[in-house]
Amino acid sequence: MIDVAILGFGTVGSGVADVLTENVKKIKRSSTVELNVKYIVDIRDFPESVYADKMVKDFRVVESDPDVKVVVETIGGTGVAFDFTKRALSAGKSVVTSNKELVATHGYELLTLAKKNNVNYLFEASVGGGIPILRPISQCLAGNDISEVFGILNGTTNYVLTQMIENNVEFDDALRQAQKLGYAEADPTADIEGLDACRKICILATLCFGKHIYPQYVPAEGITRVTLDDVAFADKIGYKIKLLGRAVKGKDDKIIPYVAAHLLPKKRLLANVSDVMNGIVVKGNAVGEVMFYGPGAGKLPTASAVAADVIDAAKHIGMSKLLFWEDGDAETVGSTDELVSQWYVRAKCQSDEAAASFGTISVVGSVGDELVFTTEPVSGAAFREKAEALQVQAAFRIMV
Amino acid sequence: MIDVAILGFGTVGSGVADVLTENVKKIKRSSTVELNVKYIVDIRDFPESVYADKMVKDFRVVESDPDVKVVVETIGGTGVAFDFTKRALSAGKSVVTSNKELVATHGYELLTLAKKNNVNYLFEASVGGGIPILRPISQCLAGNDISEVFGILNGTTNYVLTQMIENNVEFDDALRQAQKLGYAEADPTADIEGLDACRKICILATLCFGKHIYPQYVPAEGITRVTLDDVAFADKIGYKIKLLGRAVKGKDDKIIPYVAAHLLPKKRLLANVSDVMNGIVVKGNAVGEVMFYGPGAGKLPTASAVAADVIDAAKHIGMSKLLFWEDGDAETVGSTDELVSQWYVRAKCQSDEAAASFGTISVVGSVGDELVFTTEPVSGAAFREKAEALQVQAAFRIMV
Repeated sequence: MIDVAILGFGTVGSGVADVLTENVKKIKRSSTVELNVKYIVDIRDFPESVYADKMVKDFRVVESDPDVKVVVETIGGTGVAFDFTKRALSAGKSVVTSNKELVATHGYELLTLAKKNNVNYLFEASVGGGIPILRPISQCLAGNDISEVFGILNGTTNYVLTQMIENNVEFDDALRQAQKLGYAEADPTADIEGLDACRKICILATLCFGKHIYPQYVPAEGITRVTLDDVAFADKIGYKIKLLGRAVKGKDDKIIPYVAAHLLPKKRLLANVSDVMNGIVVKGNAVGEVMFYGPGAGKLPTASAVAADVIDAAKHIGMSKLLFWEDGDAETVGSTDELVSQWYVRAKCQSDEAAASFGTISVVGSVGDELVFTTEPVSGAAFREKAEALQVQAAFRIMV
Repeated sequence: MIDVAILGFGTVGSGVADVLTENVKKIKRSSTVELNVKYIVDIRDFPESVYADKMVKDFRVVESDPDVKVVVETIGGTGVAFDFTKRALSAGKSVVTSNKELVATHGYELLTLAKKNNVNYLFEASVGGGIPILRPISQCLAGNDISEVFGILNGTTNYVLTQMIENNVEFDDALRQAQKLGYAEADPTADIEGLDACRKICILATLCFGKHIYPQYVPAEGITRVTLDDVAFADKIGYKIKLLGRAVKGKDDKIIPYVAAHLLPKKRLLANVSDVMNGIVVKGNAVGEVMFYGPGAGKLPTASAVAADVIDAAKHIGMSKLLFWEDGDAETVGSTDELVSQWYVRAKCQSDEAAASFGTISVVGSVGDELVFTTEPVSGAAFREKAEALQVQAAFRIMV
C-alpha cells in the first residue's frame, strides 16, 4: 500500500480525494497499486468532511512521515506551493500537481531536484485538465521529431468565443455568463488576456522541444479585441475565431511560442472544439497530425489526470525517469517575426490604402469607417511594417 | 545501445526502419535510449535497399542473438507472426507489433508468455494507427472507472462514407476510389464488413475493462446497407452516418461490444472526423468524455506508434509491467439486446404499419416503396421484436 498526502483541500484537492477513494478498487485491479490517502493538509477546518480524520494543518507531519511516498500539490501559485514541493521532493517523495504556474515558472528547477532525490515530479493535469496530453507527447510520440504544437488551451475564452459565434452574444455578456456558470473567475484577466494559455503553451512547448520555455519570453494576446463583427466576417469567409497557444520549431533550433486569436477553417476539427472544451494538436514528422480533445478544467476531470500521475508515481518508486528536459533562457525563444501566414485585418482605412501597403488584398467587408480584409501570406515582421501606415484595430493570423 | 530486429519488410516494417533510423538522435536526446536496427528479417531479397546489410532470411539469427532485446513484428496474420512472437518472447525479448489480428486473437496468451519471461508485449499501433490511444487509456485514464469506449476505427469505410456524405458519390464508386488511392485492399471485405473495426474494438474493450474480449463473440456489421438516400435523410434530420466500434459496460459486469453504422449528431466532434482519419472517444467516471484523433493507418503514422513502443520496451528491459489483463470467454460478453437507443429505420411499409409496431414514430421521408422513420428509445431486444412485422431494409442506432 502506498500512502498519499494531498496539499490543499480546494476544488481540485477534494476531487483528487474523491477519485482516489471511490476508484480505489478499480485502480488496484487495473494498475496493481493500492493507494491510501493518509493526510490532507489545509490551514482551514473541515469538521463536516468525510475526510475529517485525515486533515492536518502542519505540512511537517507529511514531510516527516517516511510512509508518504507521493504528495499531491493542489495549492496553486508559486508561494507556499513552491516551498512545500521543494521540501517534499527533498524528503524523497514524488510530487504530483495541477499547478501550471509553478511548472511553467520553476519546472526545470523542480525536475532537477526530483532527479537528484530519485523521485518524480509529474503534472499531467497542468495542461488540458483531464485530457491525456503530456504523457502521450513524451511517450507515444517519442519516435517523432515534433515540428509544431497548438491548441485551444483555455476553456473560459473558448466558452466566450463560442457564445459569440453560435449565439451572437456580445463579449461582455458572454463573459458575465461564464462567471455565472463558474467557468470564469471574478477577476478574469488571466484567462481573457491569454496568460493562462501562455503558461500552458510554455509547458507543451517545453515537453515537445526539450528545453524549458519561460512565460516571460512568450508574447501573449487575449481575445479582448475580438468583436461580434469579426466573428461574423470570419464566418462569411469560412472561418471560426479561436484563441490558440502555439509553438513552432523555428530557424537555428529556436522555438517560437505565442498566444493569439486565430482564424481557423471551419472544416478543421479544432475549429469545432466549442464551449469550455480544449483541443490540442501535435504535428510530428512520422505521425502527421494528431489531436487530443476533452474537458480542459473542472474538479473531476482535473482530478482524473492527477490520479493517473499518482498511480504512475506509485508504480515508479525509486525510479526518477519519467520526465526531464534541459533548462532554457531568452535565447531558446525565437520571434514570431519569422512566422508566415495570411492575416485577417480590421483597420480604419480605405481599400486603396490597404492595397498600397499589402499589395493583393481580399476585401471582406466594412463596418463603420473600418475596412475588413485578408492579406496574402506575409511574415510577422513584414506584417508589422506594412500595417504601420494603416490604423489597425484588430489583426489575426489565418491558419491553413 | 539497444539492438532491435524487425520482422517483415513490408509497408509498416520499412516505415519502422525509416523512423528509428532518421529520428535516432532525437530519440536519444528525449528518451535517453540509443536504438540500433540490427536485423531485418524477410524471406524476400532487397538488394537495392539501404538496409541491405541488415537483411537476414532466417528468424533463428534473431532468436539466438542475446543482444537483440526488442523484436518488431510487422508480418501480420496469425501464422508465422504468432510462432515468431512466441519464440521471441520465450527467448527473453520484448515484442512490439501493429498486428491487430494477432493481439485480438491471442493477446492474453502472448501477454502471459511475456510476463512469464519478464519481458513486454506492446501493440499501440494495432488500434488507431499513429494515434496515441492504448497507453493513454491504460495510464492516463487509470484513475477512472470507464463506462464506454467507441470510435471510428476503420479509415477505409470512413473514407467511403465521407465521399457519400460530402460528394454524393455512390458506395461502389467511393470504394473504387479508395482502392485507387491505396486506402482499400483489392479484397475490401475485412474493412467494409466491419471485421477490421471488430478486432480493434476488441482490443480497446479489453484494455478499458480488463478482460480479453475475443472477436468471435462480437457482432459486427459493416456499411454495405448504407445508401446515398440514408445519408441524405440523416443529413436532413441533423446527423451523419458513421461506422462505429463500440463497447459498453453492461449489467452483471458484462461488456457489450459491437460494430455497426450509427447516426451521429453533426454537432458531435466525432461526426466531423472525416476521410481516412480515425477518432476514439473514451468515457470515464472522473474525466467525462475525451477524444483521440489522427491518422488511423499509413506507413509512417503506424511506424510512429511502433517506435514509441520500441522506446518504451527499451526503457523497461527486465520489467514486465507495462500491460496486462485477465482472460475472457463467451460469458464476458453481454448482448446488444439490452442497449437502448433511438433508431433510424428504412422499411417497406406504410407509416400506420410502422406506428402499429413502434408506437410513436417520426417520419423522415420515403424513397420508392420504402418508408424512412425514427423511433423512440427502445432496447435492441424490443427493436428486433417490433421490427419483425415490417420489411426492414436498414436500421441504425442514433447516438445522442
